[in-house]
Amino acid sequence: MTKNHLKDLLDTSAAKVEKAMESLLPRSEGIEAPLLEAIRYSALGGGKRLRSFMVLQSARLFKVEEIYALRVAAAVEFMHSYSLIHDDLPAMDNSDTRRGKPSCHIKFGEATAILAGDALQALAFETLVSEETHPEPGIRCRLVNALASASGGAGMVAGQMMDLVGETTSLSFDQITRLQNLKTGEMFAFSARAGAILSGVPSTEEDNLRKYAERFGLAFQIADDLLDLEGDPLEVGKPTGQDENANKATFVSALGADRARNKAEILIEEAVIMLDKWDEEGQSLRDLARHILKRTN
Amino acid sequence: MTKNHLKDLLDTSAAKVEKAMESLLPRSEGIEAPLLEAIRYSALGGGKRLRSFMVLQSARLFKVEEIYALRVAAAVEFMHSYSLIHDDLPAMDNSDTRRGKPSCHIKFGEATAILAGDALQALAFETLVSEETHPEPGIRCRLVNALASASGGAGMVAGQMMDLVGETTSLSFDQITRLQNLKTGEMFAFSARAGAILSGVPSTEEDNLRKYAERFGLAFQIADDLLDLEGDPLEVGKPTGQDENANKATFVSALGADRARNKAEILIEEAVIMLDKWDEEGQSLRDLARHILKRTN
Repeated sequence: MTKNHLKDLLDTSAAKVEKAMESLLPRSEGIEAPLLEAIRYSALGGGKRLRSFMVLQSARLFKVEEIYALRVAAAVEFMHSYSLIHDDLPAMDNSDTRRGKPSCHIKFGEATAILAGDALQALAFETLVSEETHPEPGIRCRLVNALASASGGAGMVAGQMMDLVGETTSLSFDQITRLQNLKTGEMFAFSARAGAILSGVPSTEEDNLRKYAERFGLAFQIADDLLDLEGDPLEVGKPTGQDENANKATFVSALGADRARNKAEILIEEAVIMLDKWDEEGQSLRDLARHILKRTN
Repeated sequence: MTKNHLKDLLDTSAAKVEKAMESLLPRSEGIEAPLLEAIRYSALGGGKRLRSFMVLQSARLFKVEEIYALRVAAAVEFMHSYSLIHDDLPAMDNSDTRRGKPSCHIKFGEATAILAGDALQALAFETLVSEETHPEPGIRCRLVNALASASGGAGMVAGQMMDLVGETTSLSFDQITRLQNLKTGEMFAFSARAGAILSGVPSTEEDNLRKYAERFGLAFQIADDLLDLEGDPLEVGKPTGQDENANKATFVSALGADRARNKAEILIEEAVIMLDKWDEEGQSLRDLARHILKRTN
């Protein structure tokens, strides 16, 4: 598979997911309209949609109907969008730009941005639990449970907290690894396991996919850190050099750029091995892993 | 039933719910510990626990085992705690005090407070979807769906947004009613319906409980507004006069104190009528409604 083929797949997937998200987002004529505008502004029209791509590809591995997978994909992107809105807030990373446009609180004000994030989190769960996401309630419960655990205080939110602590405390390599596993890895791990959950196979079947996603997540984070260090702000879509300014604990700050890149290459090969039991249908997830170090935004 | 009897019931219920919450809250030795401290600080040790009381009483109406109801009660209080943390933030209501102690962001900083709220929302759903909350996945899905819809962008969060809009725009009486129904009523309505959902009865059985809770919620909000206008800050546990300072759209500002109090009395009698089909087992919910105008905190 060529890089262009992967890019086509990613684009097609992103367009489908965007359409699914669009159909799930609330509209209203009421005076709370700014909330819904802010939600749509932040959730739609941008991002690489890597997590939802992983959901769709994971569904392919288990021959799950795409109509179900698309709803899980939308839920994952709602959750991711909420986390980006809250991360960008002045009290958090204080980022004025996101995906090449003003971040939510710059555009709509801080209060509306906080509420838009809150609403998107609820929408993610509401989407998963709906009968349209899967006819079997047991499967919907597994999805809700896995997403809550991946995104909450023992998952993504804990990682975000460690990230803040890391701005004023020096973190060990192991702490940085745990931080990134929680902050980014858990949501990738949910996405990669989504197909297994939707198919109803025993949860042991999720193990290799979780390992794939964790290694992918760490490599992805290193690529992100390298972009922040070396990337072109216009291409990246947000200001670069922010980690260094904020004194962030990253693999690049801990290992230096060269060793970090080397570490990412190893992680990617380890991730790819986890998909060995899948033939052609695992190719796009392998390609995705191999291409993350080459991305420019 | 005397007022003291109701107070005893409320205290017993609050103690049980507190214990259930305590057992569900995460602990950690990791560097993200401030997050978990903030979560415990805000979720535990305070509040009237009216929503969880309603859950437990609703469960009694439908003869649901209390062990299940207590988990739903804990989930409701997690959700309520998150909303209070975010409401108190400087960008929102900017309240330094909550339940007689420093609010979460004053004690732990704004970033930690935002994350603590985010984690509590996820914990609410994680609690509901767990097998320990109910053996039947279909019931757990109904609970998750009802709570997501009550708390999200078409529920509590929308009400919060209307509240913010109301600070700069004059709202009609109908808009204030809708605002309060969304901001407070939806979560009360979830709580009052919880027993019906847990018992697996058809959702039409929830209608009267929803109507009870909506009227209760409006009367409760009027009582809250009256306390803000006339209450003693030491007894109320937070500064008073805040609505007037923030130019908030309330029933009291729209109707004046006397007509608002009269409106609340009518709402309470309407709420009580909704419980007509229940005899002794509905008494505590009737008493609760009749006592909210007499509360001092």
